[in-house]
Parts: sequence; C-alpha cells; structure tokens
Amino acid sequence: MKEDSSQFAETFTTEDMEGGITNENGRDPESNSLNQPLLKRNRTLSSSPLALIGAKVSHIESLDYEINENDLFKHDWRSRSSVQVLQYIFLKWTLAFLVGLLTGLIATLINLAVENIAGFKLLAVAGFIEEKRYLMGFIYFTGANFLLTLVAAVLCVCFAPTAAGPGIPEIKAYLNGVDTPNMFGATTLIVKIIGSIGAVSAGLDLGKEGPLVHIGTCIASLLGQGGPDNYHLRWRWLRYFNNDRDRRDLITCGASSGVCAAFRAPVGGVLFALEEVATWWRSALLWRTFFSTAVVAVVLRAFIEYCNSGKCGLFGKGGLIMFDVSNVTVKYHVMDIIPVVIIGLIGGVLGSLYNYLLHKVLRLYSLINQKGKIYKLLLSLSVSLFTSVCLYGLPFLATCSPCDPSLPESACPTTGQTGNFKQFNCPDGYYNDLASLLFSTNDDAVRNIFSTNTPTEFHPLSLVIFFTLYCILGLFTFGIAVPSGLFLPIILMGSAYGRLLGSAMGSYTNIDQGLYAVLGAASLMAGSMRMTVSLCVIFLELTNNLLLLPITMIVLLIAKTAGDSFNPSIYEIILHLKGLPFLEAHPEPWMRNLTVGELADIKPAVVTLHGLEKVARIVDVLRNTTHNGFPVVDDDMVPPAGLAIGAMALKGLVLRSHLVQILKKKWFLQERRRTEEWEVREKFTWVDLAERCGRIEEVAVTKDEMEMYVDLHPLTNTTPYTVVESMSVAKAMVLFREVGLRHLLIVPQYQAAGVSPVVGILTRQDLRAHNILTAFPHLEKSKRREKGN
Amino acid sequence: MKEDSSQFAETFTTEDMEGGITNENGRDPESNSLNQPLLKRNRTLSSSPLALIGAKVSHIESLDYEINENDLFKHDWRSRSSVQVLQYIFLKWTLAFLVGLLTGLIATLINLAVENIAGFKLLAVAGFIEEKRYLMGFIYFTGANFLLTLVAAVLCVCFAPTAAGPGIPEIKAYLNGVDTPNMFGATTLIVKIIGSIGAVSAGLDLGKEGPLVHIGTCIASLLGQGGPDNYHLRWRWLRYFNNDRDRRDLITCGASSGVCAAFRAPVGGVLFALEEVATWWRSALLWRTFFSTAVVAVVLRAFIEYCNSGKCGLFGKGGLIMFDVSNVTVKYHVMDIIPVVIIGLIGGVLGSLYNYLLHKVLRLYSLINQKGKIYKLLLSLSVSLFTSVCLYGLPFLATCSPCDPSLPESACPTTGQTGNFKQFNCPDGYYNDLASLLFSTNDDAVRNIFSTNTPTEFHPLSLVIFFTLYCILGLFTFGIAVPSGLFLPIILMGSAYGRLLGSAMGSYTNIDQGLYAVLGAASLMAGSMRMTVSLCVIFLELTNNLLLLPITMIVLLIAKTAGDSFNPSIYEIILHLKGLPFLEAHPEPWMRNLTVGELADIKPAVVTLHGLEKVARIVDVLRNTTHNGFPVVDDDMVPPAGLAIGAMALKGLVLRSHLVQILKKKWFLQERRRTEEWEVREKFTWVDLAERCGRIEEVAVTKDEMEMYVDLHPLTNTTPYTVVESMSVAKAMVLFREVGLRHLLIVPQYQAAGVSPVVGILTRQDLRAHNILTAFPHLEKSKRREKGN
Repeated sequence: MKEDSSQFAETFTTEDMEGGITNENGRDPESNSLNQPLLKRNRTLSSSPLALIGAKVSHIESLDYEINENDLFKHDWRSRSSVQVLQYIFLKWTLAFLVGLLTGLIATLINLAVENIAGFKLLAVAGFIEEKRYLMGFIYFTGANFLLTLVAAVLCVCFAPTAAGPGIPEIKAYLNGVDTPNMFGATTLIVKIIGSIGAVSAGLDLGKEGPLVHIGTCIASLLGQGGPDNYHLRWRWLRYFNNDRDRRDLITCGASSGVCAAFRAPVGGVLFALEEVATWWRSALLWRTFFSTAVVAVVLRAFIEYCNSGKCGLFGKGGLIMFDVSNVTVKYHVMDIIPVVIIGLIGGVLGSLYNYLLHKVLRLYSLINQKGKIYKLLLSLSVSLFTSVCLYGLPFLATCSPCDPSLPESACPTTGQTGNFKQFNCPDGYYNDLASLLFSTNDDAVRNIFSTNTPTEFHPLSLVIFFTLYCILGLFTFGIAVPSGLFLPIILMGSAYGRLLGSAMGSYTNIDQGLYAVLGAASLMAGSMRMTVSLCVIFLELTNNLLLLPITMIVLLIAKTAGDSFNPSIYEIILHLKGLPFLEAHPEPWMRNLTVGELADIKPAVVTLHGLEKVARIVDVLRNTTHNGFPVVDDDMVPPAGLAIGAMALKGLVLRSHLVQILKKKWFLQERRRTEEWEVREKFTWVDLAERCGRIEEVAVTKDEMEMYVDLHPLTNTTPYTVVESMSVAKAMVLFREVGLRHLLIVPQYQAAGVSPVVGILTRQDLRAHNILTAFPHLEKSKRREKGN
Repeated sequence: MKEDSSQFAETFTTEDMEGGITNENGRDPESNSLNQPLLKRNRTLSSSPLALIGAKVSHIESLDYEINENDLFKHDWRSRSSVQVLQYIFLKWTLAFLVGLLTGLIATLINLAVENIAGFKLLAVAGFIEEKRYLMGFIYFTGANFLLTLVAAVLCVCFAPTAAGPGIPEIKAYLNGVDTPNMFGATTLIVKIIGSIGAVSAGLDLGKEGPLVHIGTCIASLLGQGGPDNYHLRWRWLRYFNNDRDRRDLITCGASSGVCAAFRAPVGGVLFALEEVATWWRSALLWRTFFSTAVVAVVLRAFIEYCNSGKCGLFGKGGLIMFDVSNVTVKYHVMDIIPVVIIGLIGGVLGSLYNYLLHKVLRLYSLINQKGKIYKLLLSLSVSLFTSVCLYGLPFLATCSPCDPSLPESACPTTGQTGNFKQFNCPDGYYNDLASLLFSTNDDAVRNIFSTNTPTEFHPLSLVIFFTLYCILGLFTFGIAVPSGLFLPIILMGSAYGRLLGSAMGSYTNIDQGLYAVLGAASLMAGSMRMTVSLCVIFLELTNNLLLLPITMIVLLIAKTAGDSFNPSIYEIILHLKGLPFLEAHPEPWMRNLTVGELADIKPAVVTLHGLEKVARIVDVLRNTTHNGFPVVDDDMVPPAGLAIGAMALKGLVLRSHLVQILKKKWFLQERRRTEEWEVREKFTWVDLAERCGRIEEVAVTKDEMEMYVDLHPLTNTTPYTVVESMSVAKAMVLFREVGLRHLLIVPQYQAAGVSPVVGILTRQDLRAHNILTAFPHLEKSKRREKGN
C-alpha cells in the first residue's frame, strides 16, 4: 500500500514539474486539462498552503496540538482549583453528551423529513401510475425531484459551498492538523441539514451518511466555541475549551456520533472515527466518543419507539436495525469459500476502478464548477433530471412477475412507499422487480435487495440494469453541489453484483442471496474506502447477523488487499485532489536519506527574536514574514557557571498570535528589563492567549512605541520539541505527527561559540513528501531507481 | 482517573521512604508486611529495574522500538531488492496467518480436553449421586479435582513459574517496551496449555481466557524467532523478523487471536488488543490483527461444525456463539433506566472493591509463595480442596424445585454434563437450582445463569449462596500457581448479582432476567477491568443480541466511571505489584515543573565515546557501567566552514550489544582512521546487529588488542531522538512513549565552546513518576498541596 501511495504522489509531482512554476494564486486556468493537477505550488518548500475548498482556492492554516508551556500556562495550571478542574471535566462530558443528543435529534429530523417527503412523493406518483396516467406521474416525479435538488443546490452554491460533498476528507484533515476554513460554521450546518434532506428526498444516488458525519462535527465545533462565530457565548468556563486540543477531541466525538446516527451503529461509529478519521487517539477519547455514540443510540431508539405508534407520518416503520438479515441461519461449506473469494476480488477491483473513475469525474466537475455558480447549479439539475428519467422510465422495461402464492396478499404486490414487491405498472397479483429497486428511497432499495429467503424475486436482467444504472449515477452524482455521502451509492452498487453472483451460484451455494448482496456491498465498500474493522462492525450492526461475521471479515480483507494494489482509498484521493496538506502515517523510505539540516538549508534563514526585543523589530518581523512561530534566542548576561558571557541559548518559541496580542494590548516597557510574573498576569490570561485572532494589519503602533521594548519570556513556549540537524526527515516526520506539532525546531549538531542555537524550523508543509520531492528532484530519481530494481 | 493512579503511586512511595534505602536485591524479607511494597529500590533514578516474575525477583530489560539508522541499516535497506521486500511482506502475513491458525487449533484442543475431562468427571459423579452414594461421589469429585490441580500446579511451579496467572499484565508491559524474562518461551507455552486444561477441568474458579491470550502471544513470539530459544531456525529471511518492532506487531496479533479464541469474538479480540493491551497502534497493524482473528474464527467455526456431528466426545454442543441470548426481544421503558443505572453503580463499586481486596490477597499470596515451592503447591491444593468441598456440598443446602410442566421432559431435570435444570439429589420431576450453577463447568454455569425466559428458575437464596461463594473463590483462586484467567470469575460473580437484581425488580421491569445477568456480568467486568468499547463488542459477540447494545453501553460507562473514582484497573494494580516499569499514557501534572536537565543533574555524568575509540576504553566502559547505549561525540578534525577546529559534535548513539559484537568479532584497527563502507559490511550484516546477544563477560581481549582502535561511526545510530535540557519532563515523556524509545539524549540549551553536545541520557526508569518522586521528594509535597487546594 505504501508503494502505491507513493506512486500516486509521483504522478502528481511529474505533472507539477511539467507545468513549471506557476503564479502565486496557484491556478493556471488556461492550461487546465484532465491530466493536470488542479492545484499547483511553487517549487520550494512553501509555508502558505492552498487548498480547494468547495470549488474555491483558499489559504489554509495548521492547527497546534502541542501544549504551549509558557509562564502564563504554568501559572494558570498551578492556580486552578480542584473545583475548576472538576468543572472542566464535567463540561467535557456534558459537551460530549450534547453532541450525541443533538446529532441524534438532527438525524431523526432528517430521517423524518426524508421519509415523509420522499414517501408522499412516491405515494402520489404510485397513484398516477395506478390510474395509468404515466405521463402525469412522470411530470410529477421529475418535477418534485427537480425542485428538491434545486433547493439543495441553491443553498449549497449561494450560502455554504463547503457544505457540498461528504465533508469526511476535510474532517480527516482537521484531525490531522489542517484547519479548512468555513468548514464547521453555523451556516454550513444549516445548509447541510436542509440540503441533505432535499438531495436525499430528490432520489439522487447519494446518502445522508457522509453529511451526518459532517453535521456531527459542526455541532461539536459550534458547541465547543459556544455558538456561531459572531454571536458566541463568552462564558469563562466555556472558554477553557477554546483551544485546538479540546476542539479536536470534541470533533472526534462529533464524527463518531454522525456515523452512529447514520447507520444506527454505535460501536461502528467509534471504530470508524478511530480507523478512518482520527490521526491521534487516546484511550480517554475512546471512552468519550463511546459515550457520545451511546447517547445517539438511545435518542434514535427512543424516537423509533415513539414513531412506531404512527405519530411521525410515514416515518417509523422498521426497528433500530436498518437492514436486518438475522432471520436466516448462516450455514456454509468449504465450497462456499470460492464465491466468497470471488466477491472479495470483484469488490477490490471494482472499488479501485470506481476510485479511479471518480477521480477523473471529480477533476472534470472541478473545471465545470470553477466557471461559476450558474454552471454548478446547471450541473446539479441535469444530474437530477437524468436520475429521475432513469428511475421512472427503466422499470417499464422490466416484465411483470407473478407473486409467490405463499406470500400473504398484503406483502405482494405492494403499492405503498415501502414494501418489497412493488406493483408499479403491473396487474394485480403481479409485481415489477425493477420498480422494487428503483421506485423507492435508497434505504428501501437496499432493504429490498438485501431481503432474504427471496431467491427468485429479482431477474438477473433487472439486477444488471440496476447495477449499470447505479454505476453511472454513482460516478456522476457524487461531485455535484449538494451534500452527498458515498456510503449508500457504494452499498447499492455492491449489493447488485453480490446478488447477481448469488443467482449465478444458484444451487451450488448454501448462502442466502440476500447475504450475497450484503457481502457484495461490504466488498465494494472495502474496495473503495479500504477500511476493515470498522466496516465489519458497521455491517454487523446494520444487518444483525453475527454468524456472517467470519465471511464478512474474509471478504473485507480480500477486497482491501486487491484494492490497495491499484490505488489509495477514495478519501485519500479526494484529500490529494483538494490539495489539503495531510501528513501521512508513514514516512516514505527515501526520507531516511535526507537530513532535516539539508531541508533547512534550502529554506530562507530562520527568523529569530530576542527575549527582550524592540517593538520596531517585532512589527517589522510580523509585517514582512508569514511565519506563525519565531524561535526566541538569548545571549544571557548571567550565563550558568562555566560558560562565557554571551553564550547563546534557545529560550523557546513564541507564536505570531501572541505577538499580535502583545502589540494590540500595547504591553510595552520603557526600558530593556525582565518583567515580574504579576505584570504579565495583569494584562493576559491563559484563556486570552488560546484565541487565535488578530492580524498585524489591524495593529497601529506609534513612532514612540516603536522604540520601546517587549519582554517575550513570559509568553514564550519554553519547551518546544526539537531535533538535531543530523536527524533524518523520516524520523522527524514521525515525531511531528505522533506528537501533533505545528512547529519543530532544528538545533545544531556542532557545539561551538558563535553557532546559533537554532538552525531552522520545520512545519507541516516542509515534511510533506510531495513538497520535498519538488525541492529535491534527485530523490525522485533515486526513488524510481529503487523501484526499478 | 489520573487523580487515582497518582494516589496509588503515592501510597507506594511513602512506604518506600519509610522503608529507607534497602539492599541491592531490593527485598527486605524481615520487614515485609501487608502494608509494605514487595519491591523496593534505591532512592535514585535507577537504571537496573527489578520486577517480580512468577514470585521471583528478576532483572528486566527495555525493548527498543526505534529504528537504528546506522550506515549498515541504510545500506541494507538500499540494497534490498523488491523481491526481498515482497518476501518480507508475504512473510509478515504468513506469520499472522500461522499465529491465527495455531491459536485456533490450540484453543480447540484446550476446549476439547476440558469439556471431555470435566464432562466425564461430572458424569461419573452424577452417576454416584443418582445411586445415592454421596460420599463416594464426593471422594471421586474431590480426588479428581485435586489430581488435576496437582498436575497444573506442579508444572507451573517446577518448570515455568511465568506460566502462572493470566499473563496479560506482562503482555501489556511487553507492548509498552518492557521485556519480562522467560515470558514467551516454548516451556511456558507447553506448561500454559497443559496447566490451563488441568486447572479449568479441576473446576477451579478461573477461566481459560487470560491463558489463551498468553498462549497466543507465546505462539507469535516463537514463530517470530523461528522456534524455541535453543533450537530455532536460522533461515535468512526469518531473521529479518528478529527485531523488537516486528516482534511487537506479531505479539499484538497473538494477543488478539487469544481473546478471539477465548470468546469466539474476532472483532472483540482486535479491540481488546487495541484498548487494553497495546501501547502503540498503527492502522496497518489493525488490519493484520484483524486477519489473524478472522483465521481464528474460521478455524473455531470449522471445528465446531465438525464436532457437532458428535466426533469429539463430549465437546461440540452449542454453536459459535458462547452464551446466546438472542431469543429474547429487548423492549424497554423509561422506567428501566433505574435498574440499569443501579447495575452500573453496583458493578463499579463492587469492581473496585474486588480490585482492592484482590490486591491485598495477592500481596499475602506473594509472601506465602516466596517461602518456597512446596508452599506454592500447598496453597494451590488447599484452594482446590476448598473449591471442591463447596461445589459439591452447597447444592445439598438448596431445596428441590418442581420442573415447569411446559418444559419437555428431556430439558428438566437433566443429568448429563450440560443442561440447565440439574437433577442432582432431587427426585424425578424436580431440579436443584444451585446444582445447575455449581455442579457444572464454569462455561455451562454462565450459560445457565444467562438463560432467558426462565424467570423463576433460580431461588434468590441460591443466587445469594452462589454469589457469596464465587466472591470468596474469585479472591482466593486467582493468585495460586496455575494458569488462571480473570474474565470468567468476574462474569460469574457479576451475573449472580445481576440476576438477583432482576428477580428483585420482578414485574417492574420489561427486561428478561437472563439479560439482567448479562448486564451484571458486563458491569463487574467494566468495574474491575475498566474497558468499554472492547467489552461492549465482546459481550455483543458472546450473546448475539444487538438490541441489548445501548443498555450495555450505558452500564459499562457508569461502571467504569464509578470504578475509576476509587482505584485503577486490576491490570494496572498487578503491573504495579509486580514492579514492571510500565510507562503511563499521561504525564503527571507536576512533571511540567521539572526539566529534563534537572533530572540529568542527579544522575551520574553521562558516559560518552568517541567516534574513533580505543579498544581499552570500550572494554573499560562496558565492564564498569550497566548502560545499554552510549552517545558518540566527536571533535572533528575538519569541521564545517565557519567553525573552529575541535568543535564538538553529537554523532549519535551506539548500543552496548553492538559494542560487544565488535569486541567479539575483533573488528579492530591498527591505526586511528575512518573505515570504508565495505569494511564494515565484510564483518557485520544488519541481521546480525538486530540480535541482542552477548555479554561483555564472555569477551576476551588481549593486551595488544587493547591498544588498537575501533571506528564506531558505521554502527552508530546517527539519528537518535533528542530533547533540549530545558524541556519539561512531561513533554519528554510524551515523546518517549509516543515514538517508542529506549534512550533519549539530552542536548544542551547553551551554545558555547567547551560545552559537551550531550548533557545526559534518559531511559524508561528515569521517566517513571514513582522514581522521580523518590528522587525529588519536594514534588511529592507540591503535589499534595495542590490536591489539598
């Protein structure tokens, strides 16, 4: 797998080099073609990364998960009473509870809305069809879908472009330390909720699973900061949460709550967050996310019990388990290993093919979307039209099948919005198998295709039509400007070929065809998303058949292995495509051949500050650089015994945001002296410093003030992580990622008078394989040579 | 929770100080009492740790999970062809497969043996009882149990003391980086298998779960090194695995396979390894452990299918799911929240009480065990006698209940080795409810107490007797010298009070009493072991009732929270008791007030070597120190431009084992010169260096050789992780643990001529809270003051 991800990176790089050095903006619309990357960067190690956020290119910032151990923090920590500590712990759990509660409520709301809107739409159309008014039915169906898509798309395009798509890649990047702008705001949340309802009710081939994950994280982020950006609560105790570390934990809770709400899979949700989304993990966090998902499960369960009595319109049929297949006993022979392996292989190959094609389609869509809002809208609406035409028209191609007389009359044929054997255009006593799959909500389609003990329900031809249609829709729907999840389209595609294989095996197999559909869906998920344990648990919780577990595990492992030998997972592809500076878990092998010293050499010299610094110098540095952290270096007047006066010492690292706050609050000294602890405490609190606000352009400093001094010591992080310049990039990257850093200082290997105690500073961008290869093209060659061996 | 673990550490420390400085051996048998620690250390930061391994005090070593980037490694890695890389990957997966396969086979073997031995024993005794020959039955029962215990105990005491107990704490320590001697050998494996069969068949109150985890890891370790210590295969490709990193991964696979084999819970096994056992985790490893457990599941499943046809004697009844309760539909009201909360609270309180009392009992047992082998044997045998007397005698106290006439005659009463309604001493048509619980194997007892739709089967009095008995047995059985697991005793205890509460709730509840028993068991597990997600999945896989999941989650969360407010988990307690230098996940808050420089100051000055060093000096250093790594410091003759000649540079770290190998292979130079790459490659390979063998005492160096030189550069790890001396201990510890280090170098903060480029070296022992507090008693005080606030 490592081999492949580097292959992937390589393709990008070569293209980059062909494109040459591009403009600052990073885009070069004229030369854009399908073979070129959407984002280009200068051929140096850049510290101002750009990424594609909702079809726009934005600057993005890194997050800081390191504890900033400066004097203020230490004092604050020492002076925190046990009551405050308890308050903090209590608040942490309260927020986790609220995240679960709200995610559960919103998920119920979305389900309720979707089931009712889509249900009444389908009922009305079924009415027209029953009266043989086919054209009227078509107009009503297409029109309703068109309007629903329009609502979703207009909201996404005009108010919150970041609400389009699933949002999972951005969440993954956030938890890796990349702050994508406007991702977790209140507007995004609202647009995502309404847009998701619209898009799913419109019958588009997309799910509400990805969006629910995003909704969960939005709720978490908003709760953590006490409300929307402009109106948030400024309670003192809430502001303890206004730091990157606590927000990260809360967002992890949100992500797992979202998955739990989507699939009603509490354990699967935790594992999804652990396996796919999170970069760092602590056992305390495992426990908190588990609490959140438990709350979601209880909320969902309560509403389902409530709605079972029919108080929620068309919503509420079916229990907590979405696609229950527990009514078949799983028995298998040695022979059954063959179809299981085949399903796994098909899943892997198709999954990676899907990833490959989706990548191409997304590039194409990006070009269309860049042209303007109206193009984005038109694209979405044409996909909606095409979908409606297919869903309505194709069932007419299928022949009517007679109902199995052993079934009760109420079960076959059905005309309601749910039910397995749809009557559609067929006479009484007959059903249209393709309509059972196409003329229903996506959830119901999955339920129908997973249905067990119905070996003859679906004609192979209908399954082929269904599979082909959903392959096309799955590729062309995902990139449009509405909130869309990937899970359901993949489940639909996968279940089709799984069930087809089941029919083909016929009497050679002991496994029910419904279970084949489940296995097919699992295999395509693994082939495309490359998860194992979490998918396994999610499928277990979706289908409630524990005896299927060993086969599911084997299918998932085969599909993932097969997929990994072609390309990376779909989320990684999207991350690359968007240009988000995600830091991979494993260093590339060639990184062992490069030292951080060599990396520092090609960067501009590091800008250091003195512990007692002139205001003018600080202003100058802030205005003329874009760095977010500056090493503080001192020549102590009174060095430790045995050292010459003027011996240089590394005092730590001071952050740009803290410098801006000093300037804003005008904490200046007339003379060049060290301050006392109480002086800084009068001006700043730890909570102030955690905020990341203020830009140097907003600060006005008078000429007199320019000549004054600042004592940086109390605000300096005295314990930044460091590496010696002879350290290999591979190991520096491991440190950077494992500890969750934003800045990593490089200290000299040689010990001598006159050597600066810090020779460089590394950031996320410097450690990314792609950037290093751009700056050191010879590594690219050595990499190729090694591969050629 | 953090609060508590520090409380725990504190108790230890104060006692240590009262005891004063003790002898080198670390024990002071005269003054041993229940209030004093079993292991004592000098009041300095010690680098020669002692731990209690199977009632003996042994020296233990740290493991090295860092990649040793020296010239040889780099060359080896560059010259590895893609075929070799593929071979390595293939081998990794093959080994994971073999671990799963062998664990599955051995687990089946153990199950088969236990079910048959215990089954025939119970059948014979039931025969005597049927003939009213009660005394004969008693003698037979007690005698058989005595003999079985004797076999298990003699094996453990004489051949493999490390096979006693569950082994999980030691595995946890291993994955944290602590190498416990003789833990994973072939003798241990064999004794563990036979001992476990003996102890479980003897009806002792212990499970085979912990031992199976240990068996899995033993298999993994033996496979990784190619066989037992003395006879292992020396195939070249297998020796690529002879390093701490790959062995760690394999042992993680073994641990999860073991849990999977114990509970037939593949996903639970992976999660158990992740949540409880492992310290570091990578997603690639998640996937490999998942593969191992999938293999185990398939093997178990195959054997169960095979044995269902009656070819395995008394083994093979029942399917893959051990304690199936899926036949009840879970319905619950808001009212049911009350018993759920109560069960959780009881579980937490009882669990922590159990931990507390078990701790006391284990201390007492340690004192007994120290007296000699015969005492260990006697202790085990007396526990066996007591258990037999109770199991046989107590059912006579219960009154006979008439069978429910709705049950078929074959179901009530039963006389076979399994079955729920045991006849025992009752007339036909009556059953003895206490005998259903006591007069059967532990697995069957759990199955019976979990049995659903049998609300009136057990009298509350019988449940009280059962609960009391198993509380006593659970406390006094665990520490005896046989392989013993903690899971089953806790499940038995917990299910008893769960079911009792269920009866007490009577008609106020909708939840089946069998489910109350399940919840009780889960709550006590969480209260004692403090796991959440993995327990939840294990219980799901054990009982196959997905609808129970939300309540299980809540019970687990409450029980864990309640337990954590009293004391740490049982595994942590055992780790402390054994003195294993486990590195906690979180630094203590007071560690932020201490710098690594202060820590280095109280240690003896660091011993450095030069890049070109005299043999005499190396021999001297190796003989007179016990350090396992030495920084290499050079005054380069040709320093980089701008530096004075003689500028000192930190070249890296060389390991003791590599120095010993240099001396053994006599790779000496006549003159003081740098060697070429081919010279070192002629003598050493990367695979040689990975072996951790050879002691300085075995090396003979002549007087002439003493005057020769060694070029250490090619064997030096050029990229050791470093921290600046002003770094706080808290952050250094995070780095140490996250990256998995054995040595962490401290570099100076000041940059001046004459300063050594390395001022100290930190190891695992230096970063342990207990050791630091011993050396810095004032931190202890500040800690107390803060707590008092």
